[in-house]
Amino acid sequence: MPVLSERGARVPFSPFRKLAPYADIAKEKGIQVFHLNIGQPDIETPAYAMDNLRNLDSKIVSYCVSAGNLSYRTKLLEYYLKYDVELTTDEIVVTNGASEGLSLVFQTCLNAGEEVISPEPFYANYSGFAHMAAVNIKPVTCRIEDGFALPPVEAFEAAITRKTKAILLTNPNNPTGAFYDERMLTKLFLIAQKHDLYLIVDEVYREFCFDDQVFFSALNLSGAAEHVVVVDSISKRYSACGARVGAIVTRNQTLLESLTRYTKLRLSPPFFGQLLGEAVLGKHEEAYIQEVRAEYDRRRRLVYNRLQRMEGVISYLPGGAFYCFAQFPIDDCNRFCQWLLEDFDHNGQTVMLAMGDAFYATPGMGKKEVRIAYVLNCDDLNLAMDCLEEALKVYPGRVWSDQEEAVDIL
Amino acid sequence: MPVLSERGARVPFSPFRKLAPYADIAKEKGIQVFHLNIGQPDIETPAYAMDNLRNLDSKIVSYCVSAGNLSYRTKLLEYYLKYDVELTTDEIVVTNGASEGLSLVFQTCLNAGEEVISPEPFYANYSGFAHMAAVNIKPVTCRIEDGFALPPVEAFEAAITRKTKAILLTNPNNPTGAFYDERMLTKLFLIAQKHDLYLIVDEVYREFCFDDQVFFSALNLSGAAEHVVVVDSISKRYSACGARVGAIVTRNQTLLESLTRYTKLRLSPPFFGQLLGEAVLGKHEEAYIQEVRAEYDRRRRLVYNRLQRMEGVISYLPGGAFYCFAQFPIDDCNRFCQWLLEDFDHNGQTVMLAMGDAFYATPGMGKKEVRIAYVLNCDDLNLAMDCLEEALKVYPGRVWSDQEEAVDIL
Repeated sequence: MPVLSERGARVPFSPFRKLAPYADIAKEKGIQVFHLNIGQPDIETPAYAMDNLRNLDSKIVSYCVSAGNLSYRTKLLEYYLKYDVELTTDEIVVTNGASEGLSLVFQTCLNAGEEVISPEPFYANYSGFAHMAAVNIKPVTCRIEDGFALPPVEAFEAAITRKTKAILLTNPNNPTGAFYDERMLTKLFLIAQKHDLYLIVDEVYREFCFDDQVFFSALNLSGAAEHVVVVDSISKRYSACGARVGAIVTRNQTLLESLTRYTKLRLSPPFFGQLLGEAVLGKHEEAYIQEVRAEYDRRRRLVYNRLQRMEGVISYLPGGAFYCFAQFPIDDCNRFCQWLLEDFDHNGQTVMLAMGDAFYATPGMGKKEVRIAYVLNCDDLNLAMDCLEEALKVYPGRVWSDQEEAVDIL
Repeated sequence: MPVLSERGARVPFSPFRKLAPYADIAKEKGIQVFHLNIGQPDIETPAYAMDNLRNLDSKIVSYCVSAGNLSYRTKLLEYYLKYDVELTTDEIVVTNGASEGLSLVFQTCLNAGEEVISPEPFYANYSGFAHMAAVNIKPVTCRIEDGFALPPVEAFEAAITRKTKAILLTNPNNPTGAFYDERMLTKLFLIAQKHDLYLIVDEVYREFCFDDQVFFSALNLSGAAEHVVVVDSISKRYSACGARVGAIVTRNQTLLESLTRYTKLRLSPPFFGQLLGEAVLGKHEEAYIQEVRAEYDRRRRLVYNRLQRMEGVISYLPGGAFYCFAQFPIDDCNRFCQWLLEDFDHNGQTVMLAMGDAFYATPGMGKKEVRIAYVLNCDDLNLAMDCLEEALKVYPGRVWSDQEEAVDIL
């Protein structure tokens, strides 16, 4: 048999995949599973934009412009102006979702063996894209006690080696919901500038910032044109994950030229997805976003308040996105998440969570943590929190506070 | 400024891109340009399937199953049965067009520095995907005098080195339209088996085989389960290039496992494209294909007959796809293709062709050749052939037969 390539043989497993069979078993037993494990919003895609697709008069589903339809990119210029970001269409390269964007940025910015520094916990698939590009992610650890705020910039600087080529952030953060402000981004840019690094910012959750915090795009960092690369997507902000329409936005002309050459190889981003992306923009967009943002805000407060009332649980009020992290009084998040599906129900219901340790690159981190995606309506979220509250009381691997202290002493 | 990666800096240019500005100039002068340069069919996407999208009742454009919607893959099983290929849904991995498929196959099957043997001329973007995977394509040259039939298998065997990992074919071929039959595929498989190579066959033009030739899928090669990897796409067969729906089909379980892990990283193939792909299949599909095939056959004969009547032109009747190659009595195809757009018109019309040398890996090959994509209706094709016939008479770089002989002697 011909052998796989090494990169093919070692593509990381999705760490969450191992839970799927247990969710199936729970469902077969008639148990209702609340899915708080994935970033698939339950919110509807803008109906006014879906209607556009229904009225489509094209007779041929042709190739689109490789870097994205010009009409779509022109409308995106207006969208970015909402954030005071002035661009030209040439500075936007439309991609097959943020996934292709990230993968391509790793490939074009970093050589095999080079390093990208990223605060952990980080989006688990970054590891996979890095693997495919033979790039290494070097983590800088954030702490739940700080609400996963970024550590002082000195921690980033200390992580820089001769091989470092980029700093990568998700703002607001997946999986933690942490929000990074202009001050912090400026500090990171100064380091990037000093060491001649790319500052790659994944801003796909840009629209979901709460408590009147003003989102500051890395594209607005002064003097950062050659350093900043923003990865974007319509998936989360318009609940259009299946459209597969993202973008790389940068003012680095050399990088743009390389990206444009690459996009010609793979010919075209999706025809229908771009139509949807274009149809979303315009006069109805802001009202839709405001409504969705308010809904996520309600859910965020609900989850936070419920978690606060659970004994031994450590959490925080996340500033953005639609995730939060929580530390539970448990032995191991993998065992706990599996047990929730395999051995537990509360009134015929249970919850599916994402294991916290899967978001860390540092071994041993996140063992007692989980990610909660609040992608269900408030009624279901309350029922899910009921399950969780009950589960934490009866979980056999529960670590009580006196045991915790004992463990800490050991 | 942070520097690009080497792979980013060296992504190949699309060789055809340099002609685009000249086509724009011609159009600005009011000249009608017949585009025979690209594989974008003018044929309509099946209307019955487009109607499905118009009647879409989904409210959320959600992520799809990473390896492709099960309902779509289930319908594909029936599609492949048309070619006596029996599969299970697990053996089909849906991709973002054949482009992602090819790219992914290179990444998972070949290590950086390894080689894939491919008959040239070959699809120009293979070079780009190979570059991004740091893989080398080693050409085995086919000749226009043979209608681009594959050379004897000994030529493939002679090209094998310690680094060879795969043989890659497009059947029927882009850019030549050559058709490879069961006998030839069997011979290649025996070599692949002997040297433990993958046999990668790009079958995206499968539906377009003429003269009652029976298409034989590499998936039907006996005993080849571990070797054969088929790359597929709905782009050409249903005129749905913008849908971005392709597939990798293989029975190699180890490869499938790796591919499946990879697809989870990039989350989802396109939602709308898969709906279209699914809607196409069923009772109306064969009638649509037959009609399209008959139309391409008419065009193929038209182009062939017209080329045969042009003095000094060498061509052949291609067996499949919707391309043919021709050798012209010219000094250089790059100069000629540019001249057609920049300095020539016939009754206010001209043609845009793809330069032949761009499809060869061997330097110096294809200098007098062009690829003609017959993606226009017969009336327009006739007008385009009028232009071409006239152009070859007046082109300043025309090489007359006595000169050719002189060159041959030198």
